[in-house]
Amino acid sequence: MYTHEYLSRFTSTIFQKMGCSQRDAEIISKVFVAAELRGIPSHGLMRLKDYFELWKAKRINTSPEIKIIHETPSTAVVDADKAIGMVAATESMRIAINKAMQAGTGWVSTRGSNHFGIAGYYAMMALEHDMIGVCMTNANPLVAPVFSISRLLGTNPIAVAIPADKQPPFVADFATTPIARGKLAISEKKNEKVPFGFVQDKEGNPSDDPGILAKGGSMLTLGGDYEHGSHKGYSLAAIVDIFSAVLSGANFGPFVPPSVAYLPVLEKTVGKGTGHFFGAMRIDAFQTSTQFKSKMDEWIETFRNAKPAKGKMNILIPGDPEREKEKYFRKNGISIIPEIIKDIKDIAGYFNVEFEEN
Amino acid sequence: MYTHEYLSRFTSTIFQKMGCSQRDAEIISKVFVAAELRGIPSHGLMRLKDYFELWKAKRINTSPEIKIIHETPSTAVVDADKAIGMVAATESMRIAINKAMQAGTGWVSTRGSNHFGIAGYYAMMALEHDMIGVCMTNANPLVAPVFSISRLLGTNPIAVAIPADKQPPFVADFATTPIARGKLAISEKKNEKVPFGFVQDKEGNPSDDPGILAKGGSMLTLGGDYEHGSHKGYSLAAIVDIFSAVLSGANFGPFVPPSVAYLPVLEKTVGKGTGHFFGAMRIDAFQTSTQFKSKMDEWIETFRNAKPAKGKMNILIPGDPEREKEKYFRKNGISIIPEIIKDIKDIAGYFNVEFEEN
Repeated sequence: MYTHEYLSRFTSTIFQKMGCSQRDAEIISKVFVAAELRGIPSHGLMRLKDYFELWKAKRINTSPEIKIIHETPSTAVVDADKAIGMVAATESMRIAINKAMQAGTGWVSTRGSNHFGIAGYYAMMALEHDMIGVCMTNANPLVAPVFSISRLLGTNPIAVAIPADKQPPFVADFATTPIARGKLAISEKKNEKVPFGFVQDKEGNPSDDPGILAKGGSMLTLGGDYEHGSHKGYSLAAIVDIFSAVLSGANFGPFVPPSVAYLPVLEKTVGKGTGHFFGAMRIDAFQTSTQFKSKMDEWIETFRNAKPAKGKMNILIPGDPEREKEKYFRKNGISIIPEIIKDIKDIAGYFNVEFEEN
Repeated sequence: MYTHEYLSRFTSTIFQKMGCSQRDAEIISKVFVAAELRGIPSHGLMRLKDYFELWKAKRINTSPEIKIIHETPSTAVVDADKAIGMVAATESMRIAINKAMQAGTGWVSTRGSNHFGIAGYYAMMALEHDMIGVCMTNANPLVAPVFSISRLLGTNPIAVAIPADKQPPFVADFATTPIARGKLAISEKKNEKVPFGFVQDKEGNPSDDPGILAKGGSMLTLGGDYEHGSHKGYSLAAIVDIFSAVLSGANFGPFVPPSVAYLPVLEKTVGKGTGHFFGAMRIDAFQTSTQFKSKMDEWIETFRNAKPAKGKMNILIPGDPEREKEKYFRKNGISIIPEIIKDIKDIAGYFNVEFEEN
């Protein structure tokens, strides 16, 4: 078991060794550790190796000059200069929040970025400012549009964080596919089939093979099949892609660069790097903060008190499961599986840094 | 067959007879006829009777004073004074567009409104201004959150319209449920079962009975079941509800007033009327309009040229099916089924207006 403080210090040290400023390294380590704490280890320390390899391949810039390219009172386009995604995203969300302070809302579309970890982290940055936060990103193409076998979209997540008063905030953070890619990998390792509606084979037939992506298959959009509304998941993923990449001038759809170094840089680009989209809406640009938050309490209580279906315990509010996990991991520490510890020790060794094995 | 011009004139006359100004009546008739033309007759003339009955019951206001209650450079809260939804929504979207002209983006949350027809219509209002349009609305509670049997949410649609250059615009307009409610009614009339994943019975068991809503059942959120991501559809529907109603001070969730007069006014209210949310983002608040639109053409062409799955013809861009239908109905006229014609003739008779039967 590791304390989140220990993992945070270690991660920060590694990124400083890669050339990040202390400030940037701390930003990055916060997002890594937030993923562990919120129970999304697929975006936690497990990814350290990917970032390390991208750095070795000179595919990320650890001393970027992040710039606003164009702006209006409520918008900006940010060029992240190949920054590590966490640095690009934290800075972009800060700009959105500052815009919202002046103009009521702020909307930032960012290009030239990379994989940024969990989208919910940036949406939640708005909460302490009494704002609603929004965050989206495009991602490596693994998902086929409805009726197609071409992988044109990523799992393109959407996160929205909304403050309340006595109740904890509403925090939704979800991929626009039925499942995250990591779940396929887990089922594959366990040698288990997956339910139909997650993936299709290379001809577009329904498949229950979690390893189908390596055989030319693709992931399906939220809804699963057309009858169950997969065209709606396709629309959502497309909106995320357009807001993140076409608005900013990043690579869209099939041209999003890989977030791992073992996949080659794509031959064709249509823009710069990966794209993200951020929004901040000041609550008191609509209602007084007091009125709004007390109504949000009422909203949350109404939903929490809904009647459970037979065999179910209680109704969840988006953000509940992650908050429970965070409480648990803060108290009990974070466990990391041996395979990942091995990767981490290799990286630590490369930089002559110690990583306690426990 | 009726020409859209004839239906438009007729609808406008009826609403003027109900006390609407000529301007408002024309706004309303445009949205009604747009629903027919775009192949969504469930939101077309079929609904005229519901509006007529609500008017007779004095539950809608045909001479509203629509007011901005609070505003910042990029936001406004609008009180629609019980206006017919189309009037409230058109005015609110105009305000969002005007805000965007000044501040780059405009975001309006509207309360005290009613059913407004098709969400896509208002999102598309942004297109001619070289803006991206966004529209959402809450709706009568028929949908249960994941793990619940309480009907707390509407089919809460999201619409996003994005301009392109040579390509027609991208127009997504979809309920946050696998299907629209109207499809259940159609299956029920035909005495057909529906696929599992659309509805559940009053205990929360999966059901294939399209008539289950009358037996205490509820609709499910996009995703269908938890395994396939119905918590994501629940999150989406919740976000629409909060943006539309908690931000504006309208009724949220289970307190949204019925959009038909045969259901009683709810005893408890937590705000004013139905709520909507509108957004307009000026393209040139991010990129030059020329750059953006040519990239959107490239985006659309990339997706249109994706490889079709076995047995499929081609890949659709959101908005394609509706545009094809509109082309057809504009040329060939709109057919209305005899039951609806009967309702329309009754209303016409009430006001001593003629409606041609053909």
